[in-house]
Amino acid sequence: MAVGVRELPELHPVAGVYVGTTAAGIRKPDRKDLVVFEFTEGTQVAGVFTRNLFCAAPVRLAKRSLAEHQAIRYFLINTGNANAGTGAQGMRDAEVTCAALAQETGVSSAQVLPFSTGVIGEPLPVERLVAGLPDALANLSATGWKNAAQGILTTDTVAKGCSRQVEVDGQRWTLTGIAKGSGMIRPDMATMLAFIATDAAVEPGLLRACLREASDASFNRITVDGDTSTNDACMLVATGKSAVPTLNDRNDPHYAAFMHALTEVCTDLAQQIVRDGEGATKFVSIQVEQGASSAECLQVAYAVAHSPLVKTALFASDPNWGRILAAVGRAGFTELDLDAIEIWLDEVRIVRDGGRDPDYSEAQGQRVMDRDELTIRIVLARGKVNETVWTTDLSHDYVRINAEYRS
Amino acid sequence: MAVGVRELPELHPVAGVYVGTTAAGIRKPDRKDLVVFEFTEGTQVAGVFTRNLFCAAPVRLAKRSLAEHQAIRYFLINTGNANAGTGAQGMRDAEVTCAALAQETGVSSAQVLPFSTGVIGEPLPVERLVAGLPDALANLSATGWKNAAQGILTTDTVAKGCSRQVEVDGQRWTLTGIAKGSGMIRPDMATMLAFIATDAAVEPGLLRACLREASDASFNRITVDGDTSTNDACMLVATGKSAVPTLNDRNDPHYAAFMHALTEVCTDLAQQIVRDGEGATKFVSIQVEQGASSAECLQVAYAVAHSPLVKTALFASDPNWGRILAAVGRAGFTELDLDAIEIWLDEVRIVRDGGRDPDYSEAQGQRVMDRDELTIRIVLARGKVNETVWTTDLSHDYVRINAEYRS
Repeated sequence: MAVGVRELPELHPVAGVYVGTTAAGIRKPDRKDLVVFEFTEGTQVAGVFTRNLFCAAPVRLAKRSLAEHQAIRYFLINTGNANAGTGAQGMRDAEVTCAALAQETGVSSAQVLPFSTGVIGEPLPVERLVAGLPDALANLSATGWKNAAQGILTTDTVAKGCSRQVEVDGQRWTLTGIAKGSGMIRPDMATMLAFIATDAAVEPGLLRACLREASDASFNRITVDGDTSTNDACMLVATGKSAVPTLNDRNDPHYAAFMHALTEVCTDLAQQIVRDGEGATKFVSIQVEQGASSAECLQVAYAVAHSPLVKTALFASDPNWGRILAAVGRAGFTELDLDAIEIWLDEVRIVRDGGRDPDYSEAQGQRVMDRDELTIRIVLARGKVNETVWTTDLSHDYVRINAEYRS
Repeated sequence: MAVGVRELPELHPVAGVYVGTTAAGIRKPDRKDLVVFEFTEGTQVAGVFTRNLFCAAPVRLAKRSLAEHQAIRYFLINTGNANAGTGAQGMRDAEVTCAALAQETGVSSAQVLPFSTGVIGEPLPVERLVAGLPDALANLSATGWKNAAQGILTTDTVAKGCSRQVEVDGQRWTLTGIAKGSGMIRPDMATMLAFIATDAAVEPGLLRACLREASDASFNRITVDGDTSTNDACMLVATGKSAVPTLNDRNDPHYAAFMHALTEVCTDLAQQIVRDGEGATKFVSIQVEQGASSAECLQVAYAVAHSPLVKTALFASDPNWGRILAAVGRAGFTELDLDAIEIWLDEVRIVRDGGRDPDYSEAQGQRVMDRDELTIRIVLARGKVNETVWTTDLSHDYVRINAEYRS
């Protein structure tokens, strides 16, 4: 059950982007499971991909085509099957599906990027996928985003999308994105896919840098293990159809506005994934402040976010601060000054001077822990860097979902 | 429920070691919770301790006294309270209890090493602890090991002990050890304590090296996060009362026999801890073979052992090999040759050539997964180093135990 989830917001069309969705029967009948994105000529595409060594065939193929600087015209996305752990046959299958879409649309195979999500290790049902292409193409539409948001889901309980419009010198940029991913670490369901498009014109190298930076501040700050599943991908597409002049570098006066909007869209999508985390009953921000470096802040934050003991205490709404303290202590730093560290639950300080705050009472901690959304704040008092990651609790349902899946 | 647990075996007395146990009412009435070890003069003591920064007051005190090369004569062990996260007061409390035992026995405070396990962040009940000392001292006995094995438990469901005797040139060494720790990561219950004694005479520097090596091959190979709780300690005591001549260095003809017996005792105790893991329904060996280094073997092994998805699949007895593959893939190596890697479940090969073994069938995997004890074997085909770690599954009971504890 997702925490604090809203209705899918209005998803503004992006000039030059058309989206078509169909039910191809990839794994289950009558379920939207095939999505095609079409981009106008001249569209620039940037991508960040899983760092898992066993990355899936479609990921390898998409990276290869992007690296060849092809003029990308289509994304071909299927759910129900990840085409991962499928060896050489998986690569051939991915190529065949891209070639089929290319033939239908009159582009070259390398102008189609494939994305798959679903069960690992089963052969991609190429025939059913290819048979679904004409219907997906027939309903290509500038307003097809909402259908696509549903068409890329696996075990997600809600569709995820976000849209922003930015006024620039009397002109306008639109940024619209959709994502899938059911919260916590789930490599075999190919944790996360995100597709974001904008009509902004952005120089290709800058577009890649923008995506890296925005995804670092968003998708790489959630403990979905976003960088480690076999199929993760986050794509940013810029059609250049907006009347706002091209963004060429970071010194452009409008660069900050673009990055701000892009980071907002990415962060919103990333948080929607956490809120829909498997079995999640809480949405938890872990904020590490006054660190000497970003790396050490993140190391502490992830040690807390990944601790099964902290996560089960969160599920139980138990202000068991000893577990947080112990997780900070094992984060791997030997030079922390224990007496300087403070730990807070929202507005309540629970730890100072290396032990429980004398003014802390269990009732105060309980009050915060009873909330659906809360922040664990750890003040390292070593420097000027702050970092935040977002995570969920570890519930009975997490074990149930992951133990019963496939059975 | 512990997996494959036996009765506590016979624990042979160790010449020069006397053990006394009592119920001091530290946290609960009528429960054995206070243990005193007494060692004969000339006993050598070595220890390895938690690397958690927030290590508890007794750990800091024990390390300090050991570093001063005091002639250690007593261990003072309490359960029910970890004296961790207790700030400066915790240190004073630990010192006071050591001083009290020292006064009762006519030694100096620094000849007493303290060990505490239990709840974090509550003040040590010094008065009750000190009041229990006369009774613990009154029942000091060479045969007190079994009582002590019970007296150091927290949430453990079974007492843990191991004893070996080694014949050397017509003489004999005895090694006897007890341990506590309820399996998986549980820093707030001060995961693991182990006390091992031998009548062997061992040069002090060599004794420390022996303990480091043996604990690396045993306690540091279980995913109890043995090195990360606030109170972990593993102590090795050598009284020198055996008639076997002193072991002075690694070239001693009997060194190998001693290390073998010590490693056996440590491994047996470590595995008993895993078998009694919280909510454990399976005992799983993760064996990584043909790695280029010990570090990379362990990195792969722990990535698999710590994966919640692998652990829930184990709980469900689901041969979900995609989860194992994905865990190996995210272990952090970029130079692995995916096509060379093999993954086995006991005698069944599930992965080769970067995908599912064509000869593998789900029925074969199911047959292995239905076992209470099984081995996940990962062949890296890169070198000559092998490493094994031991772990458990992640069950409903793990969440229940850790969510309900304290409530």
